[in-house]
Amino acid sequence: MVDITQKQATQRTAIAQAVVKVSSMVTIDAIKKDAVPKGDVFSMSRAAGFLGVKKTADLLPDCHPLPVEHCSIEYEIDELDIIIKILVKTFYKTGVEVEAMHGASVVALNMYDMLKPIDKGVEIHNIKLLTKTGGKSDIKRA
Amino acid sequence: MVDITQKQATQRTAIAQAVVKVSSMVTIDAIKKDAVPKGDVFSMSRAAGFLGVKKTADLLPDCHPLPVEHCSIEYEIDELDIIIKILVKTFYKTGVEVEAMHGASVVALNMYDMLKPIDKGVEIHNIKLLTKTGGKSDIKRA
Amino acid sequence: MVDITQKQATQRTAIAQAVVKVSSMVTIDAIKKDAVPKGDVFSMSRAAGFLGVKKTADLLPDCHPLPVEHCSIEYEIDELDIIIKILVKTFYKTGVEVEAMHGASVVALNMYDMLKPIDKGVEIHNIKLLTKTGGKSDIKRA
Amino acid sequence: MVDITQKQATQRTAIAQAVVKVSSMVTIDAIKKDAVPKGDVFSMSRAAGFLGVKKTADLLPDCHPLPVEHCSIEYEIDELDIIIKILVKTFYKTGVEVEAMHGASVVALNMYDMLKPIDKGVEIHNIKLLTKTGGKSDIKRA
Amino acid sequence: MVDITQKQATQRTAIAQAVVKVSSMVTIDAIKKDAVPKGDVFSMSRAAGFLGVKKTADLLPDCHPLPVEHCSIEYEIDELDIIIKILVKTFYKTGVEVEAMHGASVVALNMYDMLKPIDKGVEIHNIKLLTKTGGKSDIKRA
Amino acid sequence: MVDITQKQATQRTAIAQAVVKVSSMVTIDAIKKDAVPKGDVFSMSRAAGFLGVKKTADLLPDCHPLPVEHCSIEYEIDELDIIIKILVKTFYKTGVEVEAMHGASVVALNMYDMLKPIDKGVEIHNIKLLTKTGGKSDIKRA
Repeated sequence: MVDITQKQATQRTAIAQAVVKVSSMVTIDAIKKDAVPKGDVFSMSRAAGFLGVKKTADLLPDCHPLPVEHCSIEYEIDELDIIIKILVKTFYKTGVEVEAMHGASVVALNMYDMLKPIDKGVEIHNIKLLTKTGGKSDIKRA
Repeated sequence: MVDITQKQATQRTAIAQAVVKVSSMVTIDAIKKDAVPKGDVFSMSRAAGFLGVKKTADLLPDCHPLPVEHCSIEYEIDELDIIIKILVKTFYKTGVEVEAMHGASVVALNMYDMLKPIDKGVEIHNIKLLTKTGGKSDIKRA
Repeated sequence: MVDITQKQATQRTAIAQAVVKVSSMVTIDAIKKDAVPKGDVFSMSRAAGFLGVKKTADLLPDCHPLPVEHCSIEYEIDELDIIIKILVKTFYKTGVEVEAMHGASVVALNMYDMLKPIDKGVEIHNIKLLTKTGGKSDIKRA
Repeated sequence: MVDITQKQATQRTAIAQAVVKVSSMVTIDAIKKDAVPKGDVFSMSRAAGFLGVKKTADLLPDCHPLPVEHCSIEYEIDELDIIIKILVKTFYKTGVEVEAMHGASVVALNMYDMLKPIDKGVEIHNIKLLTKTGGKSDIKRA
Repeated sequence: MVDITQKQATQRTAIAQAVVKVSSMVTIDAIKKDAVPKGDVFSMSRAAGFLGVKKTADLLPDCHPLPVEHCSIEYEIDELDIIIKILVKTFYKTGVEVEAMHGASVVALNMYDMLKPIDKGVEIHNIKLLTKTGGKSDIKRA
Repeated sequence: MVDITQKQATQRTAIAQAVVKVSSMVTIDAIKKDAVPKGDVFSMSRAAGFLGVKKTADLLPDCHPLPVEHCSIEYEIDELDIIIKILVKTFYKTGVEVEAMHGASVVALNMYDMLKPIDKGVEIHNIKLLTKTGGKSDIKRA
């Protein structure tokens, strides 16, 4: 684990994305109408994602535990794709990219888990970092 | 959470996959030669993946806790892609698909975390179920 | 920890209750209209409650880990009281009373946490077991 | 999750209470004489409570992880009531009310769990915040 | 992780030991008189040990999660040595040796943590398996 | 739990040691040649150790959660002894001795768990603090 004892704390943000692809508009409709038998997919996945962000250092050996000071999740539906964007912030010595990516993956997996009984063809695509600010190098992808 | 008290236990298996795409053959070489500063990427990610499989029900609200009775992970390198395949087995009343998919995502995220200092362009693609056996319907994808 | 190695597994159910008392009908309206800034209180608290039920043996030293095989949560609003009822089931050697009570308390605490910014007077009352079946003695309270 | 990156750290304290009501003086006597078969109820519940306080952000999605810098627990017996008071302190950007209330509920649940074999009528009442200091508004209740 | 899906469940027991060596009889007296400032060392360490046994598979990647169905802890004082013996039982497809050894180590570490303010010379010795029954080979050591 | 709200943060380091004694040079050879069936013992135990260090406050009731800002693990083989040395650092109000000792014990237990199928005589010896710096008193042992 990298030694960060001598680093300065600065404000760090990261936005990560995951895409959940369902196999039919029936699934999208069920989500929108809150008619999925396992419950409200967006709210419950948001809860899972917040917890997932906070547990990142519990799962990844090399990852520093850090004070997660903000997290928000947005959903966008584009035909059969549900695009998850998750923003994580901290004021600390190291960044929150991996936390954001872990959160995105947990949100996506939770959707998969909740949708499984009504759609056998759900896939998860493209977990990636969209932007980060606050470390040595900012990153911005289209 | 679905009521499974009356279901019969049967042998269940699931194989899930994730693809980690690095941005340069230099990264692939560093992994192969065990020259990544954070350590042996494949072994440490295997450790993280095993733990991730076991923690699935800790992260996903609707997911039943179950006795993970086998887990193994294989890596295949195809140019810039590292293909992770994870097999999970149990003898229980419900399947291990989500466990396998969660394990695949944790392995992929751990690679991302370990490779980040030497490759800023790592992405995670295509977390999906390849096969499952043992429930009402078997699934096999190419 | 009591020795249960020689006990027979039987179907066990438990229903526990907690009451969250808010201080104003404005709070009740905000919940109903999904206008609480922190998000959908009932869905997110359900997610927290499911996870809480599964983590009971992680928190209480003497409590046996057990396969939670069903969990459901109902909310009832009676003036300023929100009555939480949580049903937990397993097929195992010991009961799920404490799991149900822990789940009820986590749901109540999560409501408290989500409502705190809009209502400083929230209290939690009366976490208790309503019914249990399946062990040496069934319990049913009014 | 509320954005606290720009907030100032200050000293925060919170005292929460829970009341465990047993059904007979025999139970109270067993606790006092350390004759409860599952062990020393007050010490083991203190251990559970300390761990519970520290795990609050693991259970409640919207709750910020924070450095718990002090925790102490007091018990007071008033006839059939055991009054649990728990004090939590930190020096951080957000308060410890929910941590104190979660700790109080875990202590109470652990008592319930340990006393269950000798008293079937234990109930948990009145989990509430008694005082808090250090945020925008101090609270003090009788 | 070894594949145990086809193994038969049998009763398994394991007893492990750890030795905590303190540096002065003053420490032993403080423990006996319950005068250690951090609280009752034996009861709180028992609580920690029970939880530790249950979390073994959370910490060790290759370890199967299993239903811990009994755990008890005994302490014996021999001059400056505190001998911890921990018995773990299950009825499952694999044994509980590592669980017992992990429990013994957590009890010992908790003593170290609680005694540190009054004794700087505490050491932990000899974490080992004393006996196991129920698998392919029973083990019994003097 | 000791009140540290008023303490100054300083840089803290601790080095702890554990010794794993195997029963035959065949075991040592298997580790060196990466021929242990459960996988690469040193890398997987390093992963377990890093996670163990971070989970110390989850297991020990009285232990303050703290930001683990560095961790590294070294192995040394001396005949049948494998000497594990683990260094932990933070910049915080309290030290990391217990974290280092917990990490050392988890590394040792993970070796025991991975080696068990090929060597029934593995024992864990001498978990102890070697040095600490940064608190009221530095400690250095030979």
